[in-house]
Amino acid sequence: MKIEVFYSLSQIDDLFLRDKNVVVIDVLRASTTVIAALNSGAREIIPVNTIESAVKVSGNLFGDVVIRGGERNAKMIEGFNLGNSPFEYTPETVKGKSIIFYTTNGAPAMWKARYAKNLLIAGFVNITAVVNKIKEIKEDVYILCAGKQTQFCIEDAVCAGMLTKLLIDDEETEIEFNDSAVAAVALFKNYSKNLLKMTRTCDHGKYLIEIGFEKDIEFCTTIDTFNVVPELSANVLKLKKKVETPSAPHVPISIDTAGVKGE
Amino acid sequence: MKIEVFYSLSQIDDLFLRDKNVVVIDVLRASTTVIAALNSGAREIIPVNTIESAVKVSGNLFGDVVIRGGERNAKMIEGFNLGNSPFEYTPETVKGKSIIFYTTNGAPAMWKARYAKNLLIAGFVNITAVVNKIKEIKEDVYILCAGKQTQFCIEDAVCAGMLTKLLIDDEETEIEFNDSAVAAVALFKNYSKNLLKMTRTCDHGKYLIEIGFEKDIEFCTTIDTFNVVPELSANVLKLKKKVETPSAPHVPISIDTAGVKGE
Repeated sequence: MKIEVFYSLSQIDDLFLRDKNVVVIDVLRASTTVIAALNSGAREIIPVNTIESAVKVSGNLFGDVVIRGGERNAKMIEGFNLGNSPFEYTPETVKGKSIIFYTTNGAPAMWKARYAKNLLIAGFVNITAVVNKIKEIKEDVYILCAGKQTQFCIEDAVCAGMLTKLLIDDEETEIEFNDSAVAAVALFKNYSKNLLKMTRTCDHGKYLIEIGFEKDIEFCTTIDTFNVVPELSANVLKLKKKVETPSAPHVPISIDTAGVKGE
Repeated sequence: MKIEVFYSLSQIDDLFLRDKNVVVIDVLRASTTVIAALNSGAREIIPVNTIESAVKVSGNLFGDVVIRGGERNAKMIEGFNLGNSPFEYTPETVKGKSIIFYTTNGAPAMWKARYAKNLLIAGFVNITAVVNKIKEIKEDVYILCAGKQTQFCIEDAVCAGMLTKLLIDDEETEIEFNDSAVAAVALFKNYSKNLLKMTRTCDHGKYLIEIGFEKDIEFCTTIDTFNVVPELSANVLKLKKKVETPSAPHVPISIDTAGVKGE
């Protein structure tokens, strides 16, 4: 098994992530907001990588079951219904709604990973649920930190390190890491007892406090507040329904597969 | 004072570094080799960002006082005199020579910072000399890790962290850091007692061991083996001669400058 971490979108191109298992992290705040929104009953979230796309995608449906959410430079966008604070995405506001979602860093990261085999959205707030999901998948994992434009963000790196640490703790097979994954684990260990201090004093945390979002930082640093994992399918983020075990086992397919393997 | 660290060339563009004080780090091995070469008496090193440039720049002079050094994917390049091992750059081989220098990551990093106000080359092997030089400059510092193409390399990050840590240890003024600088210091603290283990097990270290350069890794991880700082001037890396105090002070210029400032 392989775990690779990337600290910003500038480190990789879209095609690198094709058919891979990708986890996108943007702790402050896009990941946390998407998780909170779907937990509040939003029907789906459609991440887009430009404001123009947000307007185009929402089109005529806008205002009815389709709303626009997100931010530019952490602030509300004109013509959008909601900003990027997880507190805004209450059941009263988002239940049953499709949300077109644009943010400066997080939404482009989700969009960049749109060709992934599995794309999961993670933050501190749902980290155990994501760990469990990856353990089910049992394949190589690529963790993409949204960062800040081309820059490294320590809060995303520490969250990637926590995810990596939890994944390897009771793993029996040998795991290959890239340097960024090794460093992320070291950073998580360094900050694990002071997560909130870290998110309050990091570059983006300081900026969010300046513009009045101190409560958001505290909320985004809570661990396992939610037990849901947003997953992308056909460019739309949803919570996957649990699939029931089919009544009849797929015996013929099993036999075919075994035959192919044996060749 | 501000200290910012960047983990790969993809994080910034050439113009961002213009007129700034820049330190380029490529521990394995370009920084270390450049430092060793100039310490061995090489006249100058001209970093270029493509192999074609290396051939073009050396031109007809090639083979006489001008030689070509470097690597592609850590291996010798056809038509080059020297590879990228610091052990090759002995006084017997390089004394008095101009070296056109191309490597996969380090040389492009040096070239990227060519518009800097001051460009210094650092590694573990000359870290105290670099610290002293930066303390003389007494201005904001931008530390550019060469990384590996667009990727983070832990050995460069740890060296950047050591440099940052040494710079702030007895600094009395308040210092601003970016997230990467904060993380680099945390990584240095984590690995300070196991530097060699870190360089031997990092992505590029493992690759160098595979292709037979284990001794290089040990050498590149030694601290303060050299007391020299390569500095770029007019696209050429040299060791600066100490400038004697001029016999007559530039009194008229001082008065003019004061006049302009007062306007």
